[in-house]
Amino acid sequence: MKLCFYNDEFKSIKEMSLPVSDLMIQRGVGVFDTIRTYRKRPHALSIHLKRLEESAKSIGIELPVGKKRLAEIIREGIDRMEGEVQMRVYVTGGDVFAGGIFPHPRYFIIFEPLEKAPKEDYVNGVVLHPIDMERPFPHIKSIFYLPAYIGRRQDKEAMEALYCPAGEITESSSSSFFMVIDGKIVTAPTERVLDGVMRQIVIKLAREAGLAVEMRCPLLSEVPRAQEAFITGSIKEILPVRRIGSQRISQVNGPISQYLQHLYAQRIEDYLE
Amino acid sequence: MKLCFYNDEFKSIKEMSLPVSDLMIQRGVGVFDTIRTYRKRPHALSIHLKRLEESAKSIGIELPVGKKRLAEIIREGIDRMEGEVQMRVYVTGGDVFAGGIFPHPRYFIIFEPLEKAPKEDYVNGVVLHPIDMERPFPHIKSIFYLPAYIGRRQDKEAMEALYCPAGEITESSSSSFFMVIDGKIVTAPTERVLDGVMRQIVIKLAREAGLAVEMRCPLLSEVPRAQEAFITGSIKEILPVRRIGSQRISQVNGPISQYLQHLYAQRIEDYLE
Repeated sequence: MKLCFYNDEFKSIKEMSLPVSDLMIQRGVGVFDTIRTYRKRPHALSIHLKRLEESAKSIGIELPVGKKRLAEIIREGIDRMEGEVQMRVYVTGGDVFAGGIFPHPRYFIIFEPLEKAPKEDYVNGVVLHPIDMERPFPHIKSIFYLPAYIGRRQDKEAMEALYCPAGEITESSSSSFFMVIDGKIVTAPTERVLDGVMRQIVIKLAREAGLAVEMRCPLLSEVPRAQEAFITGSIKEILPVRRIGSQRISQVNGPISQYLQHLYAQRIEDYLE
Repeated sequence: MKLCFYNDEFKSIKEMSLPVSDLMIQRGVGVFDTIRTYRKRPHALSIHLKRLEESAKSIGIELPVGKKRLAEIIREGIDRMEGEVQMRVYVTGGDVFAGGIFPHPRYFIIFEPLEKAPKEDYVNGVVLHPIDMERPFPHIKSIFYLPAYIGRRQDKEAMEALYCPAGEITESSSSSFFMVIDGKIVTAPTERVLDGVMRQIVIKLAREAGLAVEMRCPLLSEVPRAQEAFITGSIKEILPVRRIGSQRISQVNGPISQYLQHLYAQRIEDYLE
């Protein structure tokens, strides 16, 4: 069962549709954030809602509903679903006929049963397809995912496209990216990428555990000498990478990936709300 | 009155909505093309439908309806509307739950009364706001217009954002761009931009009239010595530019702009279908 909250009611997602005059359809003006539950409690809910608000603000959209009310709806949605849940909260530019700068944004929330990557992916690692471009407006979590589809067409095994403008690896289409080089965890600086919630947590946990974290874009040319690579995201958590384009990563799910997974598992509770 | 054709019927646009599970909403997977009428006949219809097909194909979407049938629907829509019409034909990625690579794309067509830019704009020229990025996948006319909104927030007078990656002017958010330098008409090469239908026509007319057309990106640094600048599009035709960022164009609607407008007006008939 998949639910959608829209216009003050919960409905089956099959019954829910958005006016074609909404700017999300007309002009791709839409932002969202993804949240998951552990033991039926939303993880890092406040951080996600704050980021949703900031994504919207960067385009000039004010949230059409308070964050407190959003949290209430999310809790009600979780209660209505069986088992663990993944949610996407969307905010749109509102109707094109409203004129002006987004006077009446719309919002809706989709609730689905939690669907993690298959277990094998955590053992064998996933494939990323490098593309020579930057994610447009990296601080905004917009609905623009065309590069992901175009990237994956070029490599059927690829789970995600990997943004590598001029050979500098920033992030993948739906995840943050990390590469272990000379024992250090290297990841793009926050100015260049979406400040992923899981990314923030992984950096914090790594530093607390005394691991070196270097905030610079790993280079595509460094892949051959990388010891490990992984991507992170709210639903996938910490997922090892086995191949980037034609280049294999020497160790899949190596000691640092496993250590971080272990540290994360121990601290999930801290972020449940 | 605004009409929408969807699911084999014409309805008022207010009654038309798209399932939230469509990839156009979920992931911004949508392409479109804009067509206008002159004397109730669609202009360059076949060229537009061909380009729509190519935009879709570049993402991996096959048109869910033949171009011949699309043309029939468009003619019927034009008949149902009063006066001149502008239409946007949209093709979406289809439902996210369909799985696979776009097995069931959706399409819909919006019909609106033709709305040209105000007459003053043709006399006084419009303002463009330069942004330091390339339009992603310039050959695809996708629904991704966030840069236009973000650009216009920075300059309230701006009609469109002007893509200027590394100072090279490619195109504006909804138009092709031309600048007259040393008496030559300079415009980005086709590899770098959307191959606009009006752009093709303007280049052809200019060359036939013996004007020099140089296919290279005009530079932002060349704006101070440009004699004229204009943008082109199916609805706006040939629209003069008066300012790009903080730099004024020396002559607004100068001799070359006016000559091309004149040549275009004489040849509209050739493209009516």
